Amino acid sequence: MRILGIDPGLRNTGWGVIEQAGSRLSHIANGVIRIDPNLSLAARLGGIHREISDLANAYWPTCAGVEETLVNANPRSALKLGQARGAAMAALHSAGLAVHEFSPRTIKLAVVGTGGADKTQVAFMVSRLLPTAGKLASDASDALACAICTAHHVTTRTRGAA
Amino acid sequence: MRILGIDPGLRNTGWGVIEQAGSRLSHIANGVIRIDPNLSLAARLGGIHREISDLANAYWPTCAGVEETLVNANPRSALKLGQARGAAMAALHSAGLAVHEFSPRTIKLAVVGTGGADKTQVAFMVSRLLPTAGKLASDASDALACAICTAHHVTTRTRGAA
Repeated sequence: MRILGIDPGLRNTGWGVIEQAGSRLSHIANGVIRIDPNLSLAARLGGIHREISDLANAYWPTCAGVEETLVNANPRSALKLGQARGAAMAALHSAGLAVHEFSPRTIKLAVVGTGGADKTQVAFMVSRLLPTAGKLASDASDALACAICTAHHVTTRTRGAA
Repeated sequence: MRILGIDPGLRNTGWGVIEQAGSRLSHIANGVIRIDPNLSLAARLGGIHREISDLANAYWPTCAGVEETLVNANPRSALKLGQARGAAMAALHSAGLAVHEFSPRTIKLAVVGTGGADKTQVAFMVSRLLPTAGKLASDASDALACAICTAHHVTTRTRGAA
């Protein structure tokens, strides 16, 4: 199974693709979609949508994982992040992917083994679990963490259903 | 010039299409995109994107108007509305439309003549300005108000530039 993890943002959207075969995970590709902040809001959102559609066409993932947004941010940040997230999730759904959402705590638990892990621990474990990924930008590492969490949960669910 | 006004929401997205010829405005169509709240978030956002893309294909507007979101809402509402708005604006941009954003005050000023007008006054004036629109759902009326404001401003800008 091939999984696309996404960490959406209006300026930088991290992404990472992994392949799951049994209990083995391997890194396929990762990157950061960087959108020119001088463009109009509509152009930025259109850009996020197009780039994510292109990723789905390029790597043919069967499902996607996106981090749930905590709502303790201020309304202005929540609105900005929400818009980026809306454009990204619409693109994932339009590409035919099953889209899974996970809380930051669930992702940390899946990757590090504890829901209270900090960003450095998550980045360290992503590099350990996917050693061929090389040096990772922070947003790409977060996206891969989300993909790893998706792999863990989709497998668990499938096993539970079997 | 044909203008599509949009009032985005995660549950109901109002829309309205008007035609502008000189200083004359005429109503073409309006409606409300209603998304099943039992669907997954990704499916709802994908639905908003698809329906707006379909409207652009059906009515061939050259530009679109969307109300700016005030950020005095709570973060949870801001995130929800932001996601719907992100999916809608990505669709408008992908369809090749010039997307204009207006504050609620600017829209009221364009439609009623005063920025402090209430919703009833706006709905009344939309019906007066577009008498063939018939009875309007509240979200569709808001979308048409945004389209009227877009017509007013795009004309003003063009005149100013001449």
